[in-house]
Amino acid sequence: MPFTLHGLAVSQGIAIGHVHLVSHALLEVNHYHVAPRYLDEELARLDEALATVQGELIGLKAITTSGQAHSEVGAFVDLQLMMLADPMLVDAARDLVTERRCNAEWALVQQMEHLVEQFRQIEDPYLRERQADVVQVVERLVKVLLGHPGHLPPRRRDGLGSIVVAHDLSPADTIGFRDHNIAGFVTDVGGPTSHTAIVARSLKIPAVVGLHHVRDLLEDDELIIVDGTRGVIIVAPDEQIVEEYRLRRSELEIERSKLNRLRDTRATTLDGEEVNLLANIEGPKDLPAVKTANADGIGLYRTEFLFIGRDTLPDEEEQYEAYRAVVKALPGKPVTIRSFDVGADKALNGAQAREEPNPALGLRAVRYSLAEPKMFKTQLRALLRASAHGRLQIMVPMLAHAQEVDQCLALVEKAKAELRAEKVKFDEGIRIGGMIEVPAAALSLGMFIRRLAFLSIGTNDLIQYTLAIDRSDEAVAHLYDPLHPAVLKLIAGTISSGARFGLPVSVCGEMAGDPLYTELLLGMGLRNFSMHPGSILEIKQQILRADLGELAPKVQRILKMDEPARIREAVERLTA
Amino acid sequence: MPFTLHGLAVSQGIAIGHVHLVSHALLEVNHYHVAPRYLDEELARLDEALATVQGELIGLKAITTSGQAHSEVGAFVDLQLMMLADPMLVDAARDLVTERRCNAEWALVQQMEHLVEQFRQIEDPYLRERQADVVQVVERLVKVLLGHPGHLPPRRRDGLGSIVVAHDLSPADTIGFRDHNIAGFVTDVGGPTSHTAIVARSLKIPAVVGLHHVRDLLEDDELIIVDGTRGVIIVAPDEQIVEEYRLRRSELEIERSKLNRLRDTRATTLDGEEVNLLANIEGPKDLPAVKTANADGIGLYRTEFLFIGRDTLPDEEEQYEAYRAVVKALPGKPVTIRSFDVGADKALNGAQAREEPNPALGLRAVRYSLAEPKMFKTQLRALLRASAHGRLQIMVPMLAHAQEVDQCLALVEKAKAELRAEKVKFDEGIRIGGMIEVPAAALSLGMFIRRLAFLSIGTNDLIQYTLAIDRSDEAVAHLYDPLHPAVLKLIAGTISSGARFGLPVSVCGEMAGDPLYTELLLGMGLRNFSMHPGSILEIKQQILRADLGELAPKVQRILKMDEPARIREAVERLTA
Repeated sequence: MPFTLHGLAVSQGIAIGHVHLVSHALLEVNHYHVAPRYLDEELARLDEALATVQGELIGLKAITTSGQAHSEVGAFVDLQLMMLADPMLVDAARDLVTERRCNAEWALVQQMEHLVEQFRQIEDPYLRERQADVVQVVERLVKVLLGHPGHLPPRRRDGLGSIVVAHDLSPADTIGFRDHNIAGFVTDVGGPTSHTAIVARSLKIPAVVGLHHVRDLLEDDELIIVDGTRGVIIVAPDEQIVEEYRLRRSELEIERSKLNRLRDTRATTLDGEEVNLLANIEGPKDLPAVKTANADGIGLYRTEFLFIGRDTLPDEEEQYEAYRAVVKALPGKPVTIRSFDVGADKALNGAQAREEPNPALGLRAVRYSLAEPKMFKTQLRALLRASAHGRLQIMVPMLAHAQEVDQCLALVEKAKAELRAEKVKFDEGIRIGGMIEVPAAALSLGMFIRRLAFLSIGTNDLIQYTLAIDRSDEAVAHLYDPLHPAVLKLIAGTISSGARFGLPVSVCGEMAGDPLYTELLLGMGLRNFSMHPGSILEIKQQILRADLGELAPKVQRILKMDEPARIREAVERLTA
Repeated sequence: MPFTLHGLAVSQGIAIGHVHLVSHALLEVNHYHVAPRYLDEELARLDEALATVQGELIGLKAITTSGQAHSEVGAFVDLQLMMLADPMLVDAARDLVTERRCNAEWALVQQMEHLVEQFRQIEDPYLRERQADVVQVVERLVKVLLGHPGHLPPRRRDGLGSIVVAHDLSPADTIGFRDHNIAGFVTDVGGPTSHTAIVARSLKIPAVVGLHHVRDLLEDDELIIVDGTRGVIIVAPDEQIVEEYRLRRSELEIERSKLNRLRDTRATTLDGEEVNLLANIEGPKDLPAVKTANADGIGLYRTEFLFIGRDTLPDEEEQYEAYRAVVKALPGKPVTIRSFDVGADKALNGAQAREEPNPALGLRAVRYSLAEPKMFKTQLRALLRASAHGRLQIMVPMLAHAQEVDQCLALVEKAKAELRAEKVKFDEGIRIGGMIEVPAAALSLGMFIRRLAFLSIGTNDLIQYTLAIDRSDEAVAHLYDPLHPAVLKLIAGTISSGARFGLPVSVCGEMAGDPLYTELLLGMGLRNFSMHPGSILEIKQQILRADLGELAPKVQRILKMDEPARIREAVERLTA
């Protein structure tokens, strides 16, 4: 009997293949004492394992740089290399071996647990998930120390690929499989920002994650279907189901091959409305993907990555270089850089972390920046200096109060005055915008429209606050709903208010890059979509097929509905 | 030179008096070993101290029951007595003395720290603050063990009272001062639900809390003014300032004495609109205060108190008794009982607590109830059974989705069917209402109005989520603003939608009991105010003076404003 398991859809497409179960060392290593005369040998063993894993990762990097689709994977490899170099990990483990005369595996796992605990304190779900990197890097080291080989899937005779089913996957795992005809990924854990998700998307391999104890329900070699678009796997499918999914898969493949031809086509609706498709990036490392998609500019440059893995704040010079690199790479195109969207916990790198009962409702983003005006002014100076090199605009996150804008603008003026006095160049007409992601802001747009040059709707946070849901909390994640009538009202209201007052409005949350919502947002009047560069071509295709004259009245009707089931149905019909 | 310090206004009124600095034992007790042969003596010393403190508290309780204004103080005394009886505290300390052969003070402080840590994990700010009770009760025990006397303020010759200035105050402290001409309270720490706040309000003594290191800025015996209405203290006031405050104080006193005459007057505006003034209560213990104020019913009965200080869930019978007691005490009056508004952390009393990154955005209130349908149905059965004895209605907190209401209503039907089968009486026409405290609900009222019999706006949470602010987080508490235009829009929208569809709407958050907002809410159309029983007469007075014909158009103008400064000014003019 076929049956279906529901998880999170994190990488689109359909895969039909044989289960390849991957089990991991459980990191429950033994603890034993090392006699003093063998201590040097134990340290050498550790160093050797370190060199082996570093070598593996550098090898992976070489592979990934050959295809630019892998740039995100490359970034993870860099991150894991950085972790290997972190004195808190291997150096500290080395000290532990010396001081406690213990074995290298045990020392590594001790330090890993210590670091993981620190990562757990971090508010930002993306950064928090990086604790998985620490675990993976140590897992890799321990495997090398214990002499475990990697498990590679066998070549199948029936021509079907393997569906890798694991508790979790590291980039090394994922890429290690790359020449082994992998058709799909399925994992117990993980969310939209887990490795498996990001790597699978970049490799364009269908993936469903968050299936809990899926490994216990599957057997090695059994045939399953992974539907990475709906987030389900079908176990023990009969011939009819397999045939149906084969058909759907071919359709999807044809679609995909058409997409690449759209690179240099302008995103214009059937009735001639031009739409800007912008990219969300995290630093200069994402520029190749931006160029591949030929984005119309950067709609959201997240600057928090400047904080990763360091003990000190990035200084003005370092920030200036990171901002300038992106602005210079996109001459003539707008580059919207968001000021630090961090909480007290992250900015101070744990050292002086405050404990907050609800960090998402605490001192973060603009609130934190205004509480640390010196740090904020350093960032503003770096941004202003970089603005001399192109079309840079500054975007302030998490605004809720008019006085917050006033304080930001006053600090910008102060930074400008300083630079003028120092005879440093910057764009005198630089545009300052704000993110609409707190319900209060979406409900009192007048005071933001009067003060700012543009708005960008951060749908992820807006939805979370409007519904009072923390999406990273598994217990309530199912209540997160972009189509809740309240959410649609706030988004549509922001877009139409912006239009009425001639202020550009973009959407830079996940909704902008999800084809389910393209018609809906277009019909609301949105003309600036900012998303992961990998989604741009797909969204462009949807736009090219859209007829606003038809869409707008339909969307107006949807906005008047208030029964969730009807809304969902009507939105699905828009796309069909 | 006079100067002003700003804190939190927690108990209204003006006090002029001399500083009386109170210092507390810092609980940094010495640790010493007790020789085995003296262990029994040490345990006897602990038991003796326990008996002394229990005796003190029981004495206090006798004092408080003499005046019903002190019922809240009585509740704290009960709570502290319960803590003294908690095996985790004194019994565990006793074990520690025996096992570790240590002194009683040290053992108590160890257990205290352990318990305080558990309290810190609790999400609800009210319950979390109860960690102060653990500290106070241990402080009292340690003082008795060490033979410290209490410090009482001296009688002053100039007839002025004493202003007690402390880091924090326990009920025992506060009541211990009661015959010593105390004019006001000032503390370093505490919020609106701290002991000092609650006790000061019940004793009608002006208090300002949260002044941080105020003790370091004041000297014993120095003259200060406490303005418990504005939340400031004036240090070193000159003769002119003192005279001005004396005048204001006399005015306030005349006001207050007029209030008590309003007990049996119906709350009717000048132009004849009747308003219901309901009470927020936490259990049968609050009934005397409800009767004193002659409330029109109960607008919010918080049932979470059934959980305090216990390891098991309250069973149906115990809940039934607690609900029935209130319903029977108020024949003919509506009693609105809110289903458990707890998070996973609280309901399971720490034992199986889940760690949530943002508990306020997590599994709490109706979400938790629906995740624990067995527990929820037990509560619904108890509520239904109690409904046979009066006008009970059920209110569900934290609704955001239509399906949540549908699930609750289905469970109510199931509970009804069970009771019918068991031939147990209940009110077949019982009304089920919901709280509007999540922005999504306030923005999609249609789906709640169609499903429910009444709505109640929980302004505290609504404001927190709308502004994405956790008010219990000191770092952002200053951004909490009931007059933010977005907040006003949601409250006014809920009131007018209810009126349009003939659904009763009440406000049961703090705004309802704050005279600053009475005219504003009246002008929005609110006719059901639910508040702390102690505020009812003051609000009634405001209503008796209000002219809706005048107010309504003014409030409509305010609702069109979107500059915070203008709104604040206009709202202040409404009251003037």
